[in-house]
Amino acid sequence: MAEYASLSRKELCEIRDSLLKEYEDVKSKNLKLDMSRGKPGAEQLNLSLEVLDCINSSESCKAEGGVDCRNYGLLDGIPEAKRLFAEMLEVKPSEIIIGGNSSLNMMYDTVARAMTHGILGETPWCKLDKVKFLCPCPGYDRHFAITEHFGIELIPIEMKSDGPDMDAVQFYVENDESVKGIWCVPKYSNPEGITYSDEVVDRFAALNPAAKDFRIFWDNAYCVHHLTDKHDKLKNILEALRANGKENMVYIFGSTSKITFPGSGVAMMAASEENIASIKKQLAFQTIGPDKLNQLRHVRFFKNLKGIEEHMKKHAAIIKPKFDAVINALESELGGTGLAEWTNPRGGYFISVNTLDGCAKRTVELCKEAGVKLTPAGATYPYGIDPRDRNIRIAPTYPPLDELKVAAKLFCLCVKIAGIEKLLSAKKVTIGAQPVRV
Amino acid sequence: MAEYASLSRKELCEIRDSLLKEYEDVKSKNLKLDMSRGKPGAEQLNLSLEVLDCINSSESCKAEGGVDCRNYGLLDGIPEAKRLFAEMLEVKPSEIIIGGNSSLNMMYDTVARAMTHGILGETPWCKLDKVKFLCPCPGYDRHFAITEHFGIELIPIEMKSDGPDMDAVQFYVENDESVKGIWCVPKYSNPEGITYSDEVVDRFAALNPAAKDFRIFWDNAYCVHHLTDKHDKLKNILEALRANGKENMVYIFGSTSKITFPGSGVAMMAASEENIASIKKQLAFQTIGPDKLNQLRHVRFFKNLKGIEEHMKKHAAIIKPKFDAVINALESELGGTGLAEWTNPRGGYFISVNTLDGCAKRTVELCKEAGVKLTPAGATYPYGIDPRDRNIRIAPTYPPLDELKVAAKLFCLCVKIAGIEKLLSAKKVTIGAQPVRV
Repeated sequence: MAEYASLSRKELCEIRDSLLKEYEDVKSKNLKLDMSRGKPGAEQLNLSLEVLDCINSSESCKAEGGVDCRNYGLLDGIPEAKRLFAEMLEVKPSEIIIGGNSSLNMMYDTVARAMTHGILGETPWCKLDKVKFLCPCPGYDRHFAITEHFGIELIPIEMKSDGPDMDAVQFYVENDESVKGIWCVPKYSNPEGITYSDEVVDRFAALNPAAKDFRIFWDNAYCVHHLTDKHDKLKNILEALRANGKENMVYIFGSTSKITFPGSGVAMMAASEENIASIKKQLAFQTIGPDKLNQLRHVRFFKNLKGIEEHMKKHAAIIKPKFDAVINALESELGGTGLAEWTNPRGGYFISVNTLDGCAKRTVELCKEAGVKLTPAGATYPYGIDPRDRNIRIAPTYPPLDELKVAAKLFCLCVKIAGIEKLLSAKKVTIGAQPVRV
Repeated sequence: MAEYASLSRKELCEIRDSLLKEYEDVKSKNLKLDMSRGKPGAEQLNLSLEVLDCINSSESCKAEGGVDCRNYGLLDGIPEAKRLFAEMLEVKPSEIIIGGNSSLNMMYDTVARAMTHGILGETPWCKLDKVKFLCPCPGYDRHFAITEHFGIELIPIEMKSDGPDMDAVQFYVENDESVKGIWCVPKYSNPEGITYSDEVVDRFAALNPAAKDFRIFWDNAYCVHHLTDKHDKLKNILEALRANGKENMVYIFGSTSKITFPGSGVAMMAASEENIASIKKQLAFQTIGPDKLNQLRHVRFFKNLKGIEEHMKKHAAIIKPKFDAVINALESELGGTGLAEWTNPRGGYFISVNTLDGCAKRTVELCKEAGVKLTPAGATYPYGIDPRDRNIRIAPTYPPLDELKVAAKLFCLCVKIAGIEKLLSAKKVTIGAQPVRV
């Protein structure tokens, strides 16, 4: 296929007219499809039905040591859940807290506690004139939203092929005391699906922050979410930091939201023992403790890390074809056109597409008008502003495969229409000495 | 029995020596009993086993409107849970948010949001020099602890027989802008088991707070927790406030922690629609939503409010004999001695005992040394300081009945020993012109 940028105005107009006809045809079908959020599909939810069933008697409510999970107690989770998920996150059981059903909630709480009480004796952030967070982008909109909600200034950091631009990270962290944190999805990142290289992890571990209470918010949401047999390997950041005597610098988060049930999974956070002790002290004021029965359900269901890994293969068998369907559509419809680039991740929940500059919003709008909902353009950037208006996050897991194919094809169509509109508009203003029409 | 205060020094010494002998006997039994926290016993937990069982298939995970409770969505709870628990708290479904497993967590979050973001556009409390909360006492230690944790000044308010001293409440609330809230357990209160009178509720509803963001934290934890057929009736505070055009002034909390499972129940908060809308906006940053499956389990189990009420009768059948055992011990061992007063509640989870002034700590200590754990003396007061050192909260629900009887008897013994020590010490210093020994 020819690079569209090299086509003449006339050729582009012809293609556009034909695409618009196609678009009107699709529109008339009144589609109602959703590729907006990283939501498991029904078939995936059914993989974990046994979770619901494995506790159903008085005796089966007992955790290790005879603790009745129905009653009060155990602020930081049941021992067997700590052991299982510590192994999943590659930390020690003494370095983990097992929480409720939402790791996002644990991240919010962690920021909220830093705001009102400070971290390990440092000044509460709400008492400071200025607090800043680094936001590698494209990234996860709900991370950025938490810090924005607390009035924290968001600083965009460019994502490279193996992680955030570490020169920029180092510059900010080491020179600006008001930089208190950075949001990271280090494995199968949201939305690009890349995994931070060892070098990137090592550079994190070597940081000398200007702020004593600088923390890396390491959301390892997709740690076991492989799509293929070739698993990305993420270097252990807590170990890397410990080797440099800086193990307090990271908070690690994880959950089973995309392993068992998004609404009724188990969330967790890991950190150095000193951090954990401090958080537990605060948690004692905050709650009567997590839902231990649900933790026990999860341990009973998985038994061990091997059980989680086997379970994730079943997820991959369901969602890999969905990723493939989108990638195939992108390749066959957009390959060689020069109108878009995209990622082909080995894990995680998203495909990241970059259109021509200035075409993301228009593409999303065209999709919406034809009944396909996408994550809003700009959502992957702090404050919802993508300076080049080109990044779109595609979430292929929720729709059934046949609907997804329809949606992916429409998406490509919309990328092409938006791209041609852009090229034509550019040609208009540069067609001669005088712009014909602007 | 004779009033101990009227006995001679010699008589008191004889009784004391005999009691100490008895005490040593009990001590040698190496008891290990716990009357410290309001924890349901094992028999009570077994009343709700069906909760665990009523969702076990893909189809049974669907809430009203076809929502799959396993997946993301519905920040404020499933419609059928809103309806059920709105009825329980006597509010409209549009006035309730159904949360996770801990109403204490919802209270903490409500205070935390007020600290960082303020209430309905008012200044965040963390930006103010001084914030104060009124604490009717004796009261619930974990309420007081939340506000203390945020550096809020706690002002004790005397509890009368029908609720807080409303003259004092009105004085503080109407004259001091830094008074931002009051903690209340209005029905079967913790620890006294009293229910606020209509007059008290009306006086709350008539308050003209100096602070626009003054809020009543109305923890209706024991709203359906009757011990007898004679149910206390609490006037509806939201309606009373609404009648005065002040419906934003209250946050109501509730949970099923002592209806189904303390660790895995369902928590909720209710308020005016304007308050609820504002909280929901903030919740959207805070979490991906509550565990909807657990909400659905509860609705399936209870079906309707009648179901909850019938269920509570089964609890009463188990715990009323425990309350009676303690009350009987108090009456037979301490009645007429003038060494203690106690409540005989018609609902809730506690019996409140007042010893002679200055005897609560000593009594709790004596119990502890003999293997019976009580709520620490002072816990029912702000900062853990009971100015008269006399209030002790007894939680009779957790131990089996036979153990409870042993514990209650020991408790009375300790009250007597501590009381006689006090009387002797008073007599010592007043025995003649010169104290014999101080």
